[in-house]
Amino acid sequence: MTSERTRVRRLPEKQVEDRAVLDAVLDAGRVAHVAVVDDGQPYVLAVAYARDGDRVLFHGSTGSRLFRSIAAGADTCLTVTLVDGLVLARSVFESSMRYRGAMILGRAAELEHRAKFEALERMSERLTPGRWAEARQPNRRELAATLVVALPIEEWSVKVSDGWPTDEEGDLGLPVWAGVLPVEERYGEPLAAPDLQPGVEPPPYLGAWSPR
Amino acid sequence: MTSERTRVRRLPEKQVEDRAVLDAVLDAGRVAHVAVVDDGQPYVLAVAYARDGDRVLFHGSTGSRLFRSIAAGADTCLTVTLVDGLVLARSVFESSMRYRGAMILGRAAELEHRAKFEALERMSERLTPGRWAEARQPNRRELAATLVVALPIEEWSVKVSDGWPTDEEGDLGLPVWAGVLPVEERYGEPLAAPDLQPGVEPPPYLGAWSPR
Repeated sequence: MTSERTRVRRLPEKQVEDRAVLDAVLDAGRVAHVAVVDDGQPYVLAVAYARDGDRVLFHGSTGSRLFRSIAAGADTCLTVTLVDGLVLARSVFESSMRYRGAMILGRAAELEHRAKFEALERMSERLTPGRWAEARQPNRRELAATLVVALPIEEWSVKVSDGWPTDEEGDLGLPVWAGVLPVEERYGEPLAAPDLQPGVEPPPYLGAWSPR
Repeated sequence: MTSERTRVRRLPEKQVEDRAVLDAVLDAGRVAHVAVVDDGQPYVLAVAYARDGDRVLFHGSTGSRLFRSIAAGADTCLTVTLVDGLVLARSVFESSMRYRGAMILGRAAELEHRAKFEALERMSERLTPGRWAEARQPNRRELAATLVVALPIEEWSVKVSDGWPTDEEGDLGLPVWAGVLPVEERYGEPLAAPDLQPGVEPPPYLGAWSPR
């Protein structure tokens, strides 16, 4: 839910209170930016993530001091930003972007044992569906090298900017094109690894994947 | 340059010391994630940005408390992440992403007067080249509503992951496809604003733009 800390003061008309919208934005993204403060200095780390009900799962290495701090429950902020297009107004000031943005504040908790394994499966199936059943699953040593955390979806905000240029009345007559240039994202043709065994073809499930 | 704070402890082989690589990553991106700490709580904000020599320019609203804090010189971190593809290994553990990531630590300074105007032009020309000369440029009132800041490129790190799956010897014989699924991003056809004057065509320079 929205708190005083996540209330959008700037462009509040773009903020929505609907949890379903938050979930849709989180489910459309793959990479989040996570903050952690160390010795007064904030850091922003990029992580792959997956929503799982009322929490967001992500993982990192036990070798990362900053990630260990997140896993130990330091105050954090997870932000997901999807850029959908450029909004070209007749004035530079009104020019902007179409985007969807989600922000979650809170503290993550480390997952262990069965919950950790299941979270990795959930992340794998979210980002690369079909892969978990086919690829070799993590062994004990690999699990020990990985920190898996869950950030509860409790304090959050979501913004959606999907409109058209809103030029001032006095600019509408300018002979300047105005509109939206949409961003399109997709996966290209799969590139086989140089050491791939002969005869192993790309699996059919790749064709159903989309980066958004 | 790399400091103790920006030295990559995790996967150090992906870190490069070359300032030209940092510049190339910064110049390929459009949106950065910026951290600011308020009352002990870190926040991550998405901003459009442009590199200008030895500094990164970005702007925000005077109505944003968090952005005012950044403009006032609070410790910040600016991170740019470009996801170039999925790396599908034969094991889940070795599966990852191709990406380019830049991080700058420091304090931003607010720009004023002529420097502010020129920074807005630089940002506009970087993100939407050709537009500044054609669209109506910011007036005094609009400038007053905008905070423009410059973050010096002094303490930074850059990582580039552009390789192939590195499966363990024992996994190479598994009958699992391995390789890379590249992410492709481009602008789609321009969509005219509903209130566009009849007869105003999309400008030719749009065809030269690319989201990366």
